[in-house]
Amino acid sequence: MSLNVLIIGAVAAGPKAGCRIKRLEPDANVTMLDRDNYISYGGCGIPYYVSGDVADLKGLLSTSFHMVRDPQFFKGAKGVDVQTGVEALAIDRAAKKVRVKDLASGHENDLAYDKLVLATGARPFTPPIAGANLQGVWPVGDLHHAQAIKHAVAQGGVGAAAIIGAGATGLEMAEALADLWGVEVHIIERQDQFLLGVLDPDIARMLQTHMAAQDGVSLHLGADVGGILADDEGKARAVVVDGQEIAVDMVIMATGVRPNDELARAAGLELAQRGGIKVNERMQTSDPDIYAAGDCVSVKNILSGKDAYVPAGSLANRMGRVVGTNVCGGQATFPGVLGSFCIKLFGLSAARTGLNEVEARAMGLDVVAPLVVQADRAHFHPDMAMMYVKLVVEKNSRRLLGLSALGDNGDAVVGRVNAMAGLLAKGGELADLSNLELAYSPPLGAAMDILNTAANVAENMIEGRLRSIAIDEFAKRLASDDSCVIVDVRAIDNAGPYLEQLAPKWRHLPQETIAGREGEVPQDRDVLLICNSGARSYEAMRQLAGAGVTNTYNVGGGVAAVKKWGEPILAPKDEN
Amino acid sequence: MSLNVLIIGAVAAGPKAGCRIKRLEPDANVTMLDRDNYISYGGCGIPYYVSGDVADLKGLLSTSFHMVRDPQFFKGAKGVDVQTGVEALAIDRAAKKVRVKDLASGHENDLAYDKLVLATGARPFTPPIAGANLQGVWPVGDLHHAQAIKHAVAQGGVGAAAIIGAGATGLEMAEALADLWGVEVHIIERQDQFLLGVLDPDIARMLQTHMAAQDGVSLHLGADVGGILADDEGKARAVVVDGQEIAVDMVIMATGVRPNDELARAAGLELAQRGGIKVNERMQTSDPDIYAAGDCVSVKNILSGKDAYVPAGSLANRMGRVVGTNVCGGQATFPGVLGSFCIKLFGLSAARTGLNEVEARAMGLDVVAPLVVQADRAHFHPDMAMMYVKLVVEKNSRRLLGLSALGDNGDAVVGRVNAMAGLLAKGGELADLSNLELAYSPPLGAAMDILNTAANVAENMIEGRLRSIAIDEFAKRLASDDSCVIVDVRAIDNAGPYLEQLAPKWRHLPQETIAGREGEVPQDRDVLLICNSGARSYEAMRQLAGAGVTNTYNVGGGVAAVKKWGEPILAPKDEN
Repeated sequence: MSLNVLIIGAVAAGPKAGCRIKRLEPDANVTMLDRDNYISYGGCGIPYYVSGDVADLKGLLSTSFHMVRDPQFFKGAKGVDVQTGVEALAIDRAAKKVRVKDLASGHENDLAYDKLVLATGARPFTPPIAGANLQGVWPVGDLHHAQAIKHAVAQGGVGAAAIIGAGATGLEMAEALADLWGVEVHIIERQDQFLLGVLDPDIARMLQTHMAAQDGVSLHLGADVGGILADDEGKARAVVVDGQEIAVDMVIMATGVRPNDELARAAGLELAQRGGIKVNERMQTSDPDIYAAGDCVSVKNILSGKDAYVPAGSLANRMGRVVGTNVCGGQATFPGVLGSFCIKLFGLSAARTGLNEVEARAMGLDVVAPLVVQADRAHFHPDMAMMYVKLVVEKNSRRLLGLSALGDNGDAVVGRVNAMAGLLAKGGELADLSNLELAYSPPLGAAMDILNTAANVAENMIEGRLRSIAIDEFAKRLASDDSCVIVDVRAIDNAGPYLEQLAPKWRHLPQETIAGREGEVPQDRDVLLICNSGARSYEAMRQLAGAGVTNTYNVGGGVAAVKKWGEPILAPKDEN
Repeated sequence: MSLNVLIIGAVAAGPKAGCRIKRLEPDANVTMLDRDNYISYGGCGIPYYVSGDVADLKGLLSTSFHMVRDPQFFKGAKGVDVQTGVEALAIDRAAKKVRVKDLASGHENDLAYDKLVLATGARPFTPPIAGANLQGVWPVGDLHHAQAIKHAVAQGGVGAAAIIGAGATGLEMAEALADLWGVEVHIIERQDQFLLGVLDPDIARMLQTHMAAQDGVSLHLGADVGGILADDEGKARAVVVDGQEIAVDMVIMATGVRPNDELARAAGLELAQRGGIKVNERMQTSDPDIYAAGDCVSVKNILSGKDAYVPAGSLANRMGRVVGTNVCGGQATFPGVLGSFCIKLFGLSAARTGLNEVEARAMGLDVVAPLVVQADRAHFHPDMAMMYVKLVVEKNSRRLLGLSALGDNGDAVVGRVNAMAGLLAKGGELADLSNLELAYSPPLGAAMDILNTAANVAENMIEGRLRSIAIDEFAKRLASDDSCVIVDVRAIDNAGPYLEQLAPKWRHLPQETIAGREGEVPQDRDVLLICNSGARSYEAMRQLAGAGVTNTYNVGGGVAAVKKWGEPILAPKDEN
């Protein structure tokens, strides 16, 4: 008899699993349900639909060959039966059937299964903010929300909008509204960092600085939303931020999502402590005939070994395929997640994979985490842009833990992070990164790639040859501390404006003139060595060490990183 | 007493080793010799200097902070003594000294060493072609050649040029002359493939098709150069190709390089069978006090385990650092090469890492090598471009062996190859690639990346679910063979023009209508299933298999790949 597979949820993991099953077992009966009438869509594309980059909603609902993925498509092209507008109410595991309800008619019936796949996804989380349910307040949960937001904006009635939450969705929506529609955007975030728990704080800060410099974008970080105020018609008219009213015409709630795990919970399936359906490496739940995949599951972080909740269309697809294989008796595994991530905002791209510095330290790991700045290809090539990376390496084991990166050439940024992902997945160590053979040609890479350099800097730190000072610490000591001097080792045309404004705290000792002048470096306080990128100042540190001068710290990433980070070292006339 | 290090050669590996040594051991005496007065330059940048992308020769000779790397720079900034215009004549290993000659004065003397580093590089190889030494015939060996070529072109006297050799240098020079200077360029290659031994033949063919379509570029593949003819003044005026004279004003000899290993050979150091100094993983020669690095050494290919000669500035830098560490008593290793490579020509980029299909089969490995075509980011995003990859996987072990890739977004192409490089270096298997967690966001990646897809296609091939036919075989059978039909499973608006011209051999069976129509597929000959990319035709193959129809082959990469490859399926009115 044919295998009877029931799939609940038809957005990403569900369709992937269903189609894979039909390719492996053309005889299987595969039925897929969804509450919604929109199915199999690219939810990550919503901000690009709102912006207009994707002109039509069909773009998010179609295959690459422009066929709309509707129930007819799934029936004809994939052999999968889809029922939309149908909600799963309860799973009877003993009888292997699911109680479902047709939302239009209210009619209920039971669907039997041999194997059940839960792909129930996630829903927007709305924090308890007064006024969160007013008209004009939108979550970014599905295509209905997307349509409503775009419709409102396209009508021209939105002059200003508040985005509550500076995660990926909130930031991408902010760009869509500000950049494409000219809406004045207020990004309001309770934490004092963008993308907390994702990007390294220094890399996130660089992105914040870039966002804050855009026309019509205001950042409110570490800000408390007191509530959303209504006009006479019950429509949102203002957001109260830190006690101040900000007048807006629209509020986007981008405060994260929660897994739809209630059906699984009610059926007695095991959940992760912080929510999400627990699955093994084969994507089976605690009931071996029930699989789960996508935004409704909790996964394992490969590097920390801990439970993680990482809703993402890319993971959902990969998990869905593993489910499909295993439902048909195969032995595919999903080993967990690295947390690979990327985002492009107003032309600047940031990405990460693995653990960031904060996460690694919070786990009690002893790490080095150099910030490295270098050209993203041959420095003499006209397409060159500076790239900024933060590498995280465990000190004793030299195990690679993670990378965050930022730069103007988005594909180049993501390419570095993806190269690191391969190494992380295979338990790579520092020497693997130092020798990683990235392809080289001047228009496309650097003879010594920034990844190789970052590995070498980390090695120098671990071996005690390079003492580094972080940007925030440098900024603090530059502003307030008399226990240090800054020694600028660049040529005078670079160092000049700094000397003019900041001497005697800011001093000058060009790196190529240090030999024999080591005595000019003060011994009674810390010496912070700085150049453009951190390379020459490291060279200076080694020269001074050779002469016995060791009260030195290197400003990793140099002036380039400090500026990108957004520290105004100099008064506005700084032209460097 | 201070460590006394002598380095012969000052272009890439030599300077890297020397500077590293001084950072590790500031007390060391490091002396570096070079025959030339140009030192420490980016030789890979020569085509970009000739084209004008790099306006000034100084661009190739300078640091990223615009300091020219001359002997004064090495002395002041690095503490390394450089002697230019000095040739090493002989190594006396017993006495640990090197006989050197000042080329200007003719004066000879001995330089003692504790550790010797050979970084003697490579020289252009000139095949025995009559007229190869005429005026107007240039190798691309060093900056003197680069200057001479650019000077000649900039004078305006070069209307046509022959490039002999279609390796990376020849192709990049061809682009520099044709694209930037409007020179009519003839690329003449003895083999019938570009970049033989580097790129996969199908990927190379796509690049050839692209080059051949450029204004002013003529390809002569599989062509024999009979000689170069002189005018009355002894200057090259024509190249004889397959017996025909091609009038040119300049000839570029880009026929590869050979390692400068004579000094090592004369000193009795071990060489690789095909030339190049033999080194261990610590980059020591057969004399433990003599290290070697860069274009003069033979290295191990990590995947084949065999000797390889891979001259490249990127490898030279990484090897130089390993030498520097080990000269100072460290334990760094250089594990060998993957053969990572990339090139950008007239806006199209190609890259590879690991073994290509031909190399793997030549080693006797049983492999699958799917050609996969997919968008390089979300297919609905406006920045999307199609990408073409060929993945090579060993069948039984499922060990990853290599990847070639091609596409319009060069950074995206190289990013995929670099991600594969990390996996290859760590002995990655097919499942690692299937689950590789590439970062995803619509402007920067795809939910199911082309690397994940390629791994999945390879798995389907290994498990016998997908029988594939290569493009060249498809082209052959389309043209000449009555033992097959082609079944186009796309919609009629795509398939129409093909049916009009090629029916009854070209037939139509839209994939979503196959259920119930399996009997329409002929059983008496091979059925070649085709769609745009190979995905729907695979779906069709599975549907037909479910109905017991198994005389099917999938055209991997579909019509998109066939067209990119350059097969004119249809007469010129083809508008698809």
